[in-house]
Amino acid sequence: MPEPRPSPKNETPLSRKIQATLEGDYADIRKQARELLTQPEFLPLPAGLSKEEFRKKTRERVAKFTASGLPRLPFDPKYGGGGDPKKFMQVIAMLGHADMSFFVKQGVNFGLFGMSMYALGTDKHHAKYLPPLLDGTLQGGFAMTEVGGGSDVQGVKTEAVYDHATRSFTINTPSAEGRKAFIGNAANDGEVMVVFAQLKMSKDGETQGVHAFMVPIRDKTGKVLPGVAIEDCGDKVGLNGVDNGYISFKNVRIPQADMLDRFATIDENGQYQSDTPKKTARFFKMISTLVTGRVAVAINSMSGAKSALTAAITHAANRDVFGKTLLDLPSAQTRLFPHLANAYAMHFATRLLTDKLVANDPDTETMAAAIKARASDDAMRAIDEGRLIAGGSGYMSEAVYGRLRNDVDVFRTFEGDNTVLRLLTARNRLTDNLKNNFNLSSAPGKKPEGDVLDPAYQEKLFAQRESEMLYGVTKKIADGAQAAGGLAQSADNCQDDMIAYADAYADRVMIEQFTKAVREEKDPQARAALKDLCDLFAVNTMQKNAVWLLENNFINLHQSAQLRETAQQLNRKIRPNALALVDAFAIPPQLISVPKAYVPANTAPKKAANGNTPRP
Amino acid sequence: MPEPRPSPKNETPLSRKIQATLEGDYADIRKQARELLTQPEFLPLPAGLSKEEFRKKTRERVAKFTASGLPRLPFDPKYGGGGDPKKFMQVIAMLGHADMSFFVKQGVNFGLFGMSMYALGTDKHHAKYLPPLLDGTLQGGFAMTEVGGGSDVQGVKTEAVYDHATRSFTINTPSAEGRKAFIGNAANDGEVMVVFAQLKMSKDGETQGVHAFMVPIRDKTGKVLPGVAIEDCGDKVGLNGVDNGYISFKNVRIPQADMLDRFATIDENGQYQSDTPKKTARFFKMISTLVTGRVAVAINSMSGAKSALTAAITHAANRDVFGKTLLDLPSAQTRLFPHLANAYAMHFATRLLTDKLVANDPDTETMAAAIKARASDDAMRAIDEGRLIAGGSGYMSEAVYGRLRNDVDVFRTFEGDNTVLRLLTARNRLTDNLKNNFNLSSAPGKKPEGDVLDPAYQEKLFAQRESEMLYGVTKKIADGAQAAGGLAQSADNCQDDMIAYADAYADRVMIEQFTKAVREEKDPQARAALKDLCDLFAVNTMQKNAVWLLENNFINLHQSAQLRETAQQLNRKIRPNALALVDAFAIPPQLISVPKAYVPANTAPKKAANGNTPRP
Repeated sequence: MPEPRPSPKNETPLSRKIQATLEGDYADIRKQARELLTQPEFLPLPAGLSKEEFRKKTRERVAKFTASGLPRLPFDPKYGGGGDPKKFMQVIAMLGHADMSFFVKQGVNFGLFGMSMYALGTDKHHAKYLPPLLDGTLQGGFAMTEVGGGSDVQGVKTEAVYDHATRSFTINTPSAEGRKAFIGNAANDGEVMVVFAQLKMSKDGETQGVHAFMVPIRDKTGKVLPGVAIEDCGDKVGLNGVDNGYISFKNVRIPQADMLDRFATIDENGQYQSDTPKKTARFFKMISTLVTGRVAVAINSMSGAKSALTAAITHAANRDVFGKTLLDLPSAQTRLFPHLANAYAMHFATRLLTDKLVANDPDTETMAAAIKARASDDAMRAIDEGRLIAGGSGYMSEAVYGRLRNDVDVFRTFEGDNTVLRLLTARNRLTDNLKNNFNLSSAPGKKPEGDVLDPAYQEKLFAQRESEMLYGVTKKIADGAQAAGGLAQSADNCQDDMIAYADAYADRVMIEQFTKAVREEKDPQARAALKDLCDLFAVNTMQKNAVWLLENNFINLHQSAQLRETAQQLNRKIRPNALALVDAFAIPPQLISVPKAYVPANTAPKKAANGNTPRP
Repeated sequence: MPEPRPSPKNETPLSRKIQATLEGDYADIRKQARELLTQPEFLPLPAGLSKEEFRKKTRERVAKFTASGLPRLPFDPKYGGGGDPKKFMQVIAMLGHADMSFFVKQGVNFGLFGMSMYALGTDKHHAKYLPPLLDGTLQGGFAMTEVGGGSDVQGVKTEAVYDHATRSFTINTPSAEGRKAFIGNAANDGEVMVVFAQLKMSKDGETQGVHAFMVPIRDKTGKVLPGVAIEDCGDKVGLNGVDNGYISFKNVRIPQADMLDRFATIDENGQYQSDTPKKTARFFKMISTLVTGRVAVAINSMSGAKSALTAAITHAANRDVFGKTLLDLPSAQTRLFPHLANAYAMHFATRLLTDKLVANDPDTETMAAAIKARASDDAMRAIDEGRLIAGGSGYMSEAVYGRLRNDVDVFRTFEGDNTVLRLLTARNRLTDNLKNNFNLSSAPGKKPEGDVLDPAYQEKLFAQRESEMLYGVTKKIADGAQAAGGLAQSADNCQDDMIAYADAYADRVMIEQFTKAVREEKDPQARAALKDLCDLFAVNTMQKNAVWLLENNFINLHQSAQLRETAQQLNRKIRPNALALVDAFAIPPQLISVPKAYVPANTAPKKAANGNTPRP
């Protein structure tokens, strides 16, 4: 196998060039985040920490992060914010490289609590809550999910009953099923929760649907307030630095002003008012503003995959097996490189998603749902493959894999269960399609033709596949409606097709953004390296979907067989660049722990690897 | 959706009929194992236990298991054994339902230590070591893997140098890379290790290859012996009840008699003697006797999957989502039922494998490799899908999923890395094929035709697929040999094909055994339920391999599209039997822990589920 091509003197190494491409306009803030995360407080914790110790350490990390001022970035300068949410997402992306509990706990506080209050509330809420939140004198949480409800958020049982005489709401948990479940910052640190509850204008009145309320649960000394009952969730599979809890409310009274009233309000006469009169429409309007967390989770899923791939590819490049390095074995390349290609594709896709989020693009919710589901599923697979490649050493707690897998695991469930999110993407796109009068332009037509390594062909193939699948599922639901007893029932019968569609949507976004990044790359060496990886992403995604492509005449059996050969050729081309491609993620080597006992002092890595290049 | 069909009075419920089929002639011993495992010592441990507490508890469980006399079962009655290894495998299958650390720690002691001593040693070793092992006064371990070696066991660095003057061996660890790694029972409890080392007849002599030696590492008080250095592996991703360690030896002297000498010995004149003169052949002969552990791991992988599927299917059948149960959603059925079908197929496949193991069938090694790799990979997927179906509640440590996933994880690595095992299966079968003069009868010919639900068609399809793949990979390796510079190099280039072949081999074994079980089922209701599940296994396996089946003209594009529809129809037929099918695993409900805080007292399960039927 060829060795990595040595760089001529004074030439920027390939990894730095690609790093510059990955970081784009945000090299400075990424550097600042790396400087923070390489301070001693953020270095990997010893294995076997108790839940209490881990929570304490995580609390300290959030405090240190708050003190750095970085969490101010996304908020309005009027309240002490930095006014640059895009920059903040660059910081967020780095946090998961240090520790996912830390990422999630700060996310509960500044994202779920801060951003939802910011998005669903109005000026008076911003003025009251943002300054102490950003000063670190207030910590909050987000109480939406309930024990009995799961993904059926519109059906939450918690009630907020309005009393016009006292201008107040009374919050109650009517049943054990209505307890708020898995709420971050509930067990120890949260003082105020954004609570989602059915708003009723009188005790026995009808609900106006789900609304959000600012509900204090602890006083400044940390004592739980009267009427609030907290149960610690205890040990979890992962994220044990986060203090999750169950919350019940019994006659907890809050002032009218603490209803978050951007989309609905109660007027002087005690009348409910909203610009969006339909309950369900109003609910989805509120919910759609809460997409930031989903984007953050997508990005950190990918950060988890990047950490694991850096560890695994470095390991494989330095591990001798039967006389060559593990990474030289075709089977190891087949196992690792598609995940590397995925991580790159997802990097560029989440860059677009972040742009859309910040620009309030109407597609954000649909795209965030598909991308978050895909990023978290793919990250789990990448981490797991890394663990396997590292063999027994990957099973030690000191290695990155087990910890990452157990943390990233729940990224597939929170901020929206991935199956529910895929159905959401499909439903949104189906609705658009039906609004456009069942867009017949996307009916199956002439198939794209060309070389699988031609970016124009790749883009066309995935775009047309997506639109044909949308056409197909729309038609299938419409055709089945009568027999099933309605469109909704018919859609239930087509869930598998809808789920598959959502992934085709993600594929299309990913290939578009990856080919765009390659096209825009100015350095020829970096462009060639990225092109191979982008090609592997395209070919691998075609392989995974070969049955569909065959059944729908996008490729023939000969082309299908050819994909395997092409993938192997690409693997061989990628091999010499593999270390540079993970080095370009610029993860501080201090954050990638390796089992010490396993790596004897006398076997220093033979090749330049991530661990050898301290980052500025 | 149809409710489970109520059983007419006095009729044996479906679940008990299927349980009888699964247990076959071994209902009594299974019952005995259940009685043991429902004693308080074996019930689920609280979450958040420290490594030390967990190890203590696991040690106590092994002691209790030893005291039960069950570990005597597989050994020769001459030394206090029960002479029934097949019965013992039935017990082993149940252990993983209680706890995998317990399964593994007893497996290290009675299996890796006891069985390897039994298989590689001779009468004098049996007489010396078996009685105290079975009395519980001796605990042992198995020191094969080294830090630097991984899967390359033939290249272990540890040395055993013979000295004829003293009739003894001196054991040494020559380098940090040669330390024994991840050795169970090393950190705390093991007194004697079966150590694999290069046998040399003099310090500077050539190695005679790898041999096994009985090496004491601790005295009766637990003190580590002079010349032995132990390093605790510390916390691991899972199996933290097992005390793994690294071991180094410095001039540790053992008597000549403690070389395990079934395959090679040293004669009166100090001359090395073996009936198998070739080093590599001798090595593989020794290694091939160590297959019991692999079978036990395959069986307990499946036990892990069964536990997770019992929990997940019970959860989904009792969970309301948007007005129906979760298990009524087609997408949930698509996610869960193929894993249930797999678990059944694997149950019947491991029954055959156990028969072969006990009968010393020459195919055992090849089959164990393919089946262990497949069972452990599939179990991880089943457990993970269960975790996802259970949503947030599945992420609590009290639920079965996280613990099982973290334990079963390493089943893919130990007792042979799954990739290495698949290559072993392929290599063994390729060798047979070449010996049979490149069996041209398996060259692609007329394809099987028939109904996908016809067992004869299913068996024929998977058998012919396997033999065509074997033919294909044999031919590919032979054709590529010249260009690659030899058969071995050409085989390296065909690793992906070899790995795919090993799974096709497993598919064939699984479908054969599943259709056989259905055919032999006497009860019509049980037969119908098993038939649907077997059909789903066949259809799902065809779907997973549809690209190959299409490319090789086994099915056409129309049939490929039809598979999805057929799978959905089967899911609908399986739905009413789903609870009975997991109930038939007869896992004591006490062993399937569910997060208590998550299931409020007022939401008792609505349907008969595993948890409601105490087992005799």
